[in-house]
Amino acid sequence: MDRNVEALKTVKALTFDVFGTVVDWRGTIIREGRALGRTHGLRVDWPRFADAWRAGYAPAMQRVRSGELPWTDLDTLHRMILDDLLAQFEITGLNEAEIEHLNRVWHRLRPWPDARAGLAALRRNFVLATLSNGHVALLVNMAKTARLPWDCILSAELFRHYKPDPEVYLGAAALLGLAPHEVMMVAAHNGDLLAARSVGMRTAFVARPREHGPGQTTDLTPAAGVDIAATDFCDLAAKLSPRAEP
Amino acid sequence: MDRNVEALKTVKALTFDVFGTVVDWRGTIIREGRALGRTHGLRVDWPRFADAWRAGYAPAMQRVRSGELPWTDLDTLHRMILDDLLAQFEITGLNEAEIEHLNRVWHRLRPWPDARAGLAALRRNFVLATLSNGHVALLVNMAKTARLPWDCILSAELFRHYKPDPEVYLGAAALLGLAPHEVMMVAAHNGDLLAARSVGMRTAFVARPREHGPGQTTDLTPAAGVDIAATDFCDLAAKLSPRAEP
Repeated sequence: MDRNVEALKTVKALTFDVFGTVVDWRGTIIREGRALGRTHGLRVDWPRFADAWRAGYAPAMQRVRSGELPWTDLDTLHRMILDDLLAQFEITGLNEAEIEHLNRVWHRLRPWPDARAGLAALRRNFVLATLSNGHVALLVNMAKTARLPWDCILSAELFRHYKPDPEVYLGAAALLGLAPHEVMMVAAHNGDLLAARSVGMRTAFVARPREHGPGQTTDLTPAAGVDIAATDFCDLAAKLSPRAEP
Repeated sequence: MDRNVEALKTVKALTFDVFGTVVDWRGTIIREGRALGRTHGLRVDWPRFADAWRAGYAPAMQRVRSGELPWTDLDTLHRMILDDLLAQFEITGLNEAEIEHLNRVWHRLRPWPDARAGLAALRRNFVLATLSNGHVALLVNMAKTARLPWDCILSAELFRHYKPDPEVYLGAAALLGLAPHEVMMVAAHNGDLLAARSVGMRTAFVARPREHGPGQTTDLTPAAGVDIAATDFCDLAAKLSPRAEP
């Protein structure tokens, strides 16, 4: 966080990681899982189920990166993982429509409490875009449900590469008609930020210390080299305000 | 307009042509041209200039389609045409920054008077996306300036094909996660609508009888086979309302 603040004055657009940074995937899955459990008489450890679903995501993407699978959207990857989890957690009695509805919980993830107001404040001064491994349709549906005020939906799907591949960050800047240093990546994950930084983007870390639940041990503090650290999106808006004197 | 209204009940998203359908390119260019003329003492027939600029657009795209030019964004095509027009209309005394600012008037086009309110009403029931030959950055900047409430910015640029190539319409439906019959193309141009229809999309004609000025002779009425005809976006919202009984 020692970069000269002058370097931030060129920023015209902010690109946002979504899962965990904007929306609370774990809390939403636990809430929907518990409701499903009540109607179907299921006894499931939903926090463990949510964590297992998310844990299947990086290996599933790796199967695409390695060429074992062709380009695959996140609904399909999530469903492959979910089908395994239904067996593993002994979840039975759901028909196909109910399983498909559960799979699409990722389209209905709820925003962190500060997200909507923080984005609205940031949008006054910057172009705001998603930059997620989620596909376009998922991100559009999520924005509609959660009322997230994006200027533009950008996704790994447009580049046929998942983050943290550099093609995603460079492709986003190009589509926005900007140089990488005119774009700031916003994420709760240092890995995402360092990949963005490596192609010349500016970076903002927003702490989401409960993304993985009460015992979270990762991404509690920003990595060295991140430009700005914020406690939430409203704090980020204050720190990036043209009137702020950092 | 005789298609069974049942066929329209499957529509989940509306994709919009932009130049001429959402924004008044001719009126905006004339207004900005006249202001530029006053500050630089230019005597130019700005309506004729605007028409000539727009008339250069289809041949420029054709040079890309034919392979004579590689994929080229609309700023670059507009600039190629503009450079010719500056000579043709004997517009002198502009420096490079002023020429580039004029070229980007397409990012600042003003919406038709009904556009913002009509889109806001339509957005309550549908996903709204652009589907324009303009590139993503232009459409994002235009939406920001004109305060157009899109859910998603879709552009020919994402498919490396210009409308009316079928790849654009099919690509848009695929990115929205929808079948073509779940998407309705909205345009003031019958050619655009018939191309969308040919791949299975639904179609809505919105009349813009002054797009080309007071003497307009084209696209005054919808072509046969168009599903809905509307006088403006507010009329379209009323006709597509779940409570409407067409």
